[in-house]
Amino acid sequence: MLLSSRIRSENGALHEHICLELLSRPSPLLQRTQTSRHLVYIMLRPIYTTQSWVSQRGRITFASSNLEEFNPPEYEALEGVTPRAPTTQALSVLNVDMRVTDNKKAHNTSKYKNTCLIVRRNKEFIINIRYSRPFNNQQDNVQIEFMIGSSPDENKGTYITVSIGREKRDRRWKSRMIGMQGNDVAVGITPDANCIIGRFRTFVTVITDMGKQRTPSNPKTDFYVLFNPWDPADPVYVSRDNDRQEYVMNDVGIIYNGEFNNVTSRSWNYGQFEQGVLDACLLVLDAGKVPLMYRGNAIELVRQGSALINAQNDNGVLVGKWSGDYSIGTAPTAWTGSPEILLKYARDGCVPVCFAQCWVFAGVLNTFLRCLGIPTRVVTNYVSAHDNTGNLKTDIIVDVDGRMSRRETRDSIWNYHSWNEVYMRRPDLPEKYSGWQVVDSTPQETSEGLYRCGPTSVNAVKDGELSYPFDARFVFAELNSDVVYHQSDKYGNTNISYVDTTHVGKLIVTKSVNSNNYEDITSTYKYPEGSDKDRQAMQMAVRRGVPSRDYTHLDETGVEIELQVGNIKMGENFQLTLYIKNQDSQMCTLSFTITGCVAYYTGVTSSTFMLDNKTATLDAWQTTEVMIDVKASEYMPYLVEQSNLLFLVFGRVQETSAGVMAMKVVALRPPELTITVTGTPQVGKDFMVTVSFQNPFNFILKNVQLRLESPGLISTKVKTYDQIAPGGTLQYKDTITPESAGTKVLIACLDCVAVRQVTSELEIFVQ
Amino acid sequence: MLLSSRIRSENGALHEHICLELLSRPSPLLQRTQTSRHLVYIMLRPIYTTQSWVSQRGRITFASSNLEEFNPPEYEALEGVTPRAPTTQALSVLNVDMRVTDNKKAHNTSKYKNTCLIVRRNKEFIINIRYSRPFNNQQDNVQIEFMIGSSPDENKGTYITVSIGREKRDRRWKSRMIGMQGNDVAVGITPDANCIIGRFRTFVTVITDMGKQRTPSNPKTDFYVLFNPWDPADPVYVSRDNDRQEYVMNDVGIIYNGEFNNVTSRSWNYGQFEQGVLDACLLVLDAGKVPLMYRGNAIELVRQGSALINAQNDNGVLVGKWSGDYSIGTAPTAWTGSPEILLKYARDGCVPVCFAQCWVFAGVLNTFLRCLGIPTRVVTNYVSAHDNTGNLKTDIIVDVDGRMSRRETRDSIWNYHSWNEVYMRRPDLPEKYSGWQVVDSTPQETSEGLYRCGPTSVNAVKDGELSYPFDARFVFAELNSDVVYHQSDKYGNTNISYVDTTHVGKLIVTKSVNSNNYEDITSTYKYPEGSDKDRQAMQMAVRRGVPSRDYTHLDETGVEIELQVGNIKMGENFQLTLYIKNQDSQMCTLSFTITGCVAYYTGVTSSTFMLDNKTATLDAWQTTEVMIDVKASEYMPYLVEQSNLLFLVFGRVQETSAGVMAMKVVALRPPELTITVTGTPQVGKDFMVTVSFQNPFNFILKNVQLRLESPGLISTKVKTYDQIAPGGTLQYKDTITPESAGTKVLIACLDCVAVRQVTSELEIFVQ
Repeated sequence: MLLSSRIRSENGALHEHICLELLSRPSPLLQRTQTSRHLVYIMLRPIYTTQSWVSQRGRITFASSNLEEFNPPEYEALEGVTPRAPTTQALSVLNVDMRVTDNKKAHNTSKYKNTCLIVRRNKEFIINIRYSRPFNNQQDNVQIEFMIGSSPDENKGTYITVSIGREKRDRRWKSRMIGMQGNDVAVGITPDANCIIGRFRTFVTVITDMGKQRTPSNPKTDFYVLFNPWDPADPVYVSRDNDRQEYVMNDVGIIYNGEFNNVTSRSWNYGQFEQGVLDACLLVLDAGKVPLMYRGNAIELVRQGSALINAQNDNGVLVGKWSGDYSIGTAPTAWTGSPEILLKYARDGCVPVCFAQCWVFAGVLNTFLRCLGIPTRVVTNYVSAHDNTGNLKTDIIVDVDGRMSRRETRDSIWNYHSWNEVYMRRPDLPEKYSGWQVVDSTPQETSEGLYRCGPTSVNAVKDGELSYPFDARFVFAELNSDVVYHQSDKYGNTNISYVDTTHVGKLIVTKSVNSNNYEDITSTYKYPEGSDKDRQAMQMAVRRGVPSRDYTHLDETGVEIELQVGNIKMGENFQLTLYIKNQDSQMCTLSFTITGCVAYYTGVTSSTFMLDNKTATLDAWQTTEVMIDVKASEYMPYLVEQSNLLFLVFGRVQETSAGVMAMKVVALRPPELTITVTGTPQVGKDFMVTVSFQNPFNFILKNVQLRLESPGLISTKVKTYDQIAPGGTLQYKDTITPESAGTKVLIACLDCVAVRQVTSELEIFVQ
Repeated sequence: MLLSSRIRSENGALHEHICLELLSRPSPLLQRTQTSRHLVYIMLRPIYTTQSWVSQRGRITFASSNLEEFNPPEYEALEGVTPRAPTTQALSVLNVDMRVTDNKKAHNTSKYKNTCLIVRRNKEFIINIRYSRPFNNQQDNVQIEFMIGSSPDENKGTYITVSIGREKRDRRWKSRMIGMQGNDVAVGITPDANCIIGRFRTFVTVITDMGKQRTPSNPKTDFYVLFNPWDPADPVYVSRDNDRQEYVMNDVGIIYNGEFNNVTSRSWNYGQFEQGVLDACLLVLDAGKVPLMYRGNAIELVRQGSALINAQNDNGVLVGKWSGDYSIGTAPTAWTGSPEILLKYARDGCVPVCFAQCWVFAGVLNTFLRCLGIPTRVVTNYVSAHDNTGNLKTDIIVDVDGRMSRRETRDSIWNYHSWNEVYMRRPDLPEKYSGWQVVDSTPQETSEGLYRCGPTSVNAVKDGELSYPFDARFVFAELNSDVVYHQSDKYGNTNISYVDTTHVGKLIVTKSVNSNNYEDITSTYKYPEGSDKDRQAMQMAVRRGVPSRDYTHLDETGVEIELQVGNIKMGENFQLTLYIKNQDSQMCTLSFTITGCVAYYTGVTSSTFMLDNKTATLDAWQTTEVMIDVKASEYMPYLVEQSNLLFLVFGRVQETSAGVMAMKVVALRPPELTITVTGTPQVGKDFMVTVSFQNPFNFILKNVQLRLESPGLISTKVKTYDQIAPGGTLQYKDTITPESAGTKVLIACLDCVAVRQVTSELEIFVQ
């Protein structure tokens, strides 16, 4: 009985009753509309309820789960047909073979550790259908149906049919008969270039004048469709194979940290091909209620991904935390890769995983996107402004005595901030804004009500063309904010005392293609400081509503100061050098205050451990250096997280009362972790790996966590140690039996409250 | 004790402890940062918790309530000052007079029924300060402080100071001394053109070397700042006074409904000046947690308004409902104006009010915006597509027999849809996209996660320039969707059988300035159908990502059909005329199915009351008419809501099998309601108003609700009647004593389950 006959019987006032009946009885009636299982499902989701469908006429619920399935009947009779003897021997389907190995190889998906077929859009894959007798192309009529979700619908792209034989009629996807051998028919199928991404189910249906005979539901014929960066018709197309190998296929990478003149890094296991990771990524979309219908749109998927990787708003994957207490979860610094996080999220039924900071968000988003076939990379912006007030100024408030006011300073400058770029066409924007797009899942500011950011065109940000979606203004501020120092007077009023227009957005880097060095991509985001193009971009930004910044009313001080320091190891005493340059023809006396605080990598300061006042007298045009001693015993007790020290110098020229400021972040080098290998790594043979660490401090390290993993070699191993005594040594040994040859990376990380970010990696070649 | 001294004492590892201490002890310390009251407040809001401030370093909470207040101390000593004898007689403030009447007159705010001062941005207002002795401009130092919200902050625009006397120093707002007479000083104050909108508090502070002496908190010196459409510097500036009188100052208006060739209307009491309405509008922003800091930005305010007037997502003002059962609230058709709704929302502590449909949402949003000083109008788009699938096609599915399939048709075409336009500059967009902007608070589709829509530039929609924020694509679809008729075959497959590219976006109207007639503003949204510019706009839309629509593969039917009908009164029998035109040189036979359903104004159909098959044979080039009888007895039992009937004709040319379709909505005219006045309305004298209604039907009307209101004359009166017998009459009489002269509008509305949308209005002049 088809839906239409129901509607016929409704020819009265009973529509509401009938609607409800339709929903409560599972039957072939509900094909492509609503199943009883779907009913239960949507009842669990307060936003999309059946009730709202019934009462809010004109409001429709969309299927938004790839896990939920619709089960079509195996036999459907046609209406009004009197059974009669078949003219030929009935055709039936004995077997459907998805030819997994061949197809995966052709579709660049062999690396995925899934037993099911995985294909990419707009590229043909071949399946074999075995019939009960030879197929007759002139007489037989066979439909191959692909379904995704609980209410397959042709108009929504969740129900797709192709056909072979008598009544050839393909709509969205194409098909062709490739060959016939005995009872076997090979059929080539090409999903369209914009089709939905996810797990589809396959049914082969023989159609006669009597009705439809469908193959039973069979998980072995399920297959995944992914984005296709190899295909020019796909919006995520990448032309060079080297780039695809890096941005789609590379499952291990490097995330940069430290500071701009002391770039450090850590390896990250993206692990997009690991067992269960693809299903976990689709689960993220299900948990985020992303309608299936929108899952073919790369822009939409990237934007949703940026919201769903963080747990704010939507029970996404990771909980951000920037305090020092991670005891109820794993410290952000302790993770070594994404699979552990995504698999935990899936295993725990979509409970957000604790805890993450920017590189963890970026690493997991990178996995999510590469896994679905979207080219992406992690980039790091050094000296990244977080403009809480939206005025493109980072306001630093100092008190009467030149010390930074922690409570009044609301903006912050992140030492570094990592986000992602995705490579895609933007059909919604003028053509020149296609290419790399910024996307950021670290929950910094809400964008249109949710914690998400992007995708926003890197080219548009560079040009100051900030009107286009999404969040160009926020990204522009991260790169181009001015740092404005305000000083409060004794009445609590503040005055601008100094402006630094070049402090922010110093350097943007990403891992190079085919190399472990970093590539400086600053010039893709910014024109050279002070160039005509730079001025033009700023003017354009102002025309697009960015507040204009005019500091001409500020006095010239005639004095320049700069703080410099070498590469310092945690626990060392060291010296800061303050360079002072008198650019005036008069002698001057500079009195200055140096504040030293420990700081988070977010630029937010914690305890102040040093406060010093000094005076320097300079002749006209003279340059001098003042050395400032910093003792380990002063800063070590207060270190937080990533061992950053922030020094702020506020000076005042006594002759003119003009103010001058300098700020410097010192990222302390953590102690070393060593990975060594004994034996020659060979497929099928054991070799030994040793991770060693010595506590260089004069205090005990407690609750030490050690992680070791290697994509394609071993999954994550976590060991905990109660304590490591001062000078004490830790050695962890493990035996590994490689299953496949090639270059592998061992990634280790040691983490405890007192010392974070102790990482190491070793590249080995398995013969 | 100032904050700085605390930070000094923090010179250790105790920062966390100190932070908490800061938060738990109310003291002058917390000035401009956090009060204990604020603490309690934010504890109630799970998103912004103190905990998150403590643990999420770098994440800052923003004050988002205009109701919460910060109470500064009346005396603040300066640090490090040794008390000494004053050099002159101490100055103290005896009184602050806000000169409410004069200032309101100058600021076009006299109509607001508030006792407090109400001013507009970037225009000077004058206050009088009475001192204890004559003010000495060379020696005395006085600060006037304006504060909004619980944590006033100079950087956020929530704490503003201007000064007079010795230390003249204004930042955001300007001030000047206007005159001095005895101990009185008149000070002119000009809020800046972008300042926050809301209720500010005033403090006058005398500053000496010893400290600050502040006037005590005094609600009489509170005042409201609104947008200023009179000022060219304000982004909401409107140049013509007539336009300002209509779009800002008019508190009664007309909302159009019916159908495009039968435009009907109802009056609406916007009532933005009524007692309590301004406070209710600010409460809407508080309930929606709109940070105070953003409340000076017209774009942000309009966007937030569009989300907050509906209750989806955010406990906004109105609950949308489109079913027939409104028994737990008020039927959308029964309301006559906004004040009743906004005041109920405020009185009930921000519990959403039941129920609304598009014109109610538009009416209340209009009040909200006009009340805050943003120029706005309600517009109605006839034949408005609601494209659920985002493909710019409205898909109508008919079954094998040519009947519309209610379950498979997911898109709908609203008979009419009302939204708002606001007039403003868009500094975030290229200049040509300033001007009228669409904003819509009817919850149709989520925009970036929330039910809201706009502001989006009308000019940009017209040009097909759909990349710019916000929601241009959705509005473009409402105006430009094609209607695509699909027919399913016996196997359940569907084929496109007919496309109508001109059905949608027929007519857009709004109330004329200074007149009760409608103004046709279709040409502001669309170039003439088929013109070069129209084609260019479509091409631009395609370049901005709208799916291209190519129907060249469809066969020409050679036959055109059209349905016509006159203006029909509810309860009448009538005739539909089907015009059939054979445009071919061959004779043809057309068999067609006519389906008649009752329909909601959203285009969603309810019960089918008519189903008829006919055949017509036409000679070459012949035109013929087929008359179709529709009986009241057939449709009356099934009428829903606004009494619309939807007729769908699906024809098939027997010779060619080509399909042809026509659709027609008939809006039935409801029975009449009459308002009459006895006596001459004069200020201070009684006159009588009578509202009468006769039940023209042969059935009893039950639970009839009658509403009568008149802005500036009487507030809403609601009467209920158990029943009105067939032919029975209802008469409601009321005595009114006008308080002010001028033109007034009486608005009445009768509502019951069986008959909706029975409205009437009468303009009277009070002498």
